[in-house]
Parts: sequence; C-alpha cells; structure tokens
Amino acid sequence: MNKPSIIKPDPKLDLVLERFIDVPRDLMWKAWTTPEHIVKWFTPKPWSTKECEIDLRPGGMFRTVMVSPEGKEFPNMGCYLEVVPNERLVFTDALLPGYRPSENPFFTGVVSFATEGSGTRYTAMAIHRDEAGKKQHEEMGFHDGWGKALDQLVAHVKTM
Amino acid sequence: MNKPSIIKPDPKLDLVLERFIDVPRDLMWKAWTTPEHIVKWFTPKPWSTKECEIDLRPGGMFRTVMVSPEGKEFPNMGCYLEVVPNERLVFTDALLPGYRPSENPFFTGVVSFATEGSGTRYTAMAIHRDEAGKKQHEEMGFHDGWGKALDQLVAHVKTM
Repeated sequence: MNKPSIIKPDPKLDLVLERFIDVPRDLMWKAWTTPEHIVKWFTPKPWSTKECEIDLRPGGMFRTVMVSPEGKEFPNMGCYLEVVPNERLVFTDALLPGYRPSENPFFTGVVSFATEGSGTRYTAMAIHRDEAGKKQHEEMGFHDGWGKALDQLVAHVKTM
Repeated sequence: MNKPSIIKPDPKLDLVLERFIDVPRDLMWKAWTTPEHIVKWFTPKPWSTKECEIDLRPGGMFRTVMVSPEGKEFPNMGCYLEVVPNERLVFTDALLPGYRPSENPFFTGVVSFATEGSGTRYTAMAIHRDEAGKKQHEEMGFHDGWGKALDQLVAHVKTM
C-alpha cells in the first residue's frame, strides 16, 4: 500500500489544474471535505451549490446539487475512493455510494495537497472515460470554472 | 475509517453467495489475489482463465482473460477498490486501473473472509447498476457458476 500513486493523467483524456495557494493544506482539506464549506465555494458564481452531503470514507457518498443562474438544479451523486487526510482526495461519479456502478459516469476527480513553504501546492485532476468526455468538460469550462471555484475556496478559507 | 462496511447489497439489484469453507482464510485470500492461483480455479470448467494480471492495491489492475469451451476469449479489465488482507477484497469493472471510468460497467465484486472455527465463512457479492444487470448475471449462471468456481478454488487450495 506504500507504492506511489497509481493515478497517471493522460494528456489526451484528462484535465489538470495546478497552482500554488497561500493557505495551509489542512484548511484546504477542510474546505474540500465539509458540506458547510463546500456550499460556499464549490461552483463559480453566478452558479451556486444548494446542497452537499458527505460521508468521508472510501465508498461513502459525495453528493451535491448545483444551481444554474436560471435556477435549474443539477444533482451530482458519487462516492469517494481514497481519503488521505490533508493529502489526497479521490472521488468518482462512475460509482454510487457503496460502490454501485452508476448510470451516467463522467469523471473521477483527484485533488492533492502538498505543503510548500507556508502554503500549499494544489493539484486537481479530472480523469475521463474518453476524449469526448475531456472535450465536454473543457467546453463546460473546466479551466476557467475550476480556477474560479479555487479563487472562491481561497477567499472563503481566509474567512474561516 | 473504522466505520462498518458501507457495502449493503440490495436484494432487487444484487447477488450474494455465502458458504462455510473448510480452509483457513489466509489461503482463500492467496487464491483470490495471486495470478498463478486465479488461473487454476476462477472460471467453472469447461471454461478456463487464460491470463490474469493483478496490481493489488486500490486503483490497481485486476485483469483476466476467460476462454469459452469453443475457444472464444473474453477479456475483463477492472481495478481494486479495497484491499484488506485476509478480510475483504473489493473490485469493479466500472473503473479501469487508475480509476478511469470504463466503457461497459457491469458489476462491483465484494469477497469477504471471516474465520469460523478452523475454516472460513466466505461471502461473495455482485453489486449491479440496475435490475437488468442482476438479471443478466443470473442468466449467465451466477449462483451455479460462482459456486462451481468456489468448489474449484477449495480443491485447488488443498493442493497448495
């Protein structure tokens, strides 16, 4: 179990956002793993996150309901795969809680936190089934959207 | 991480095989997690398992190639989700190695081993996406097939 991470993003299929964040990684972890914090930053404005439910363990529920500027609700249901406190969080919508295969898999998310000086080297990856999945995510605005959400996370963490 | 298992089979969707096996659980574990043993018992005769590749860690590869009596090959690719030595093994074909969502998810498998006297209480579960998945697995002969494979496993373990 001490082998290096098995997650290897493929540039043809996957999307990666990496940034240095001037916030300690334990606060980044808390913002990523607590519903009351998630709803504050998870979706780039004017979108919002209306609900969040978390059972923080492998196979445990990660559920959100996002709301578009027009008020349309977009529920997301998935589960966690790896939970390494302050270090790495892996979740997917390919499996529902309890590891049940889902109807509409889109991606596996991997967020990593490494201490760098007084801050955190943050990496977020989206692992897709195929090139179409990557393209769809790009067109949904992965880089801009995940980047803006990260700005919101940082702003929120500084109020914690 | 010490909460009870999150895996709850649903009788409408899932299939379960439970049996007492007169073999210690560490040998059952070895038979389930070593390619050279898997190929000896994994598919009920006259089917066979031609190849097996295992990277025994969460996200690691679990690959087999089954061969029908007519010689047709059926490759299976998936990954492990939980690896608790001598106790519980969880794997799925909904995710490829490295947690990439797969094209054709069918089921998540959960095998559990509990010491009972000098033997093992063995439980195998197949967790499906929907009722159609359960039905397909039943029609493929889940109960008979997994039962026969288990007989082969026991016979093989006694030669180890």
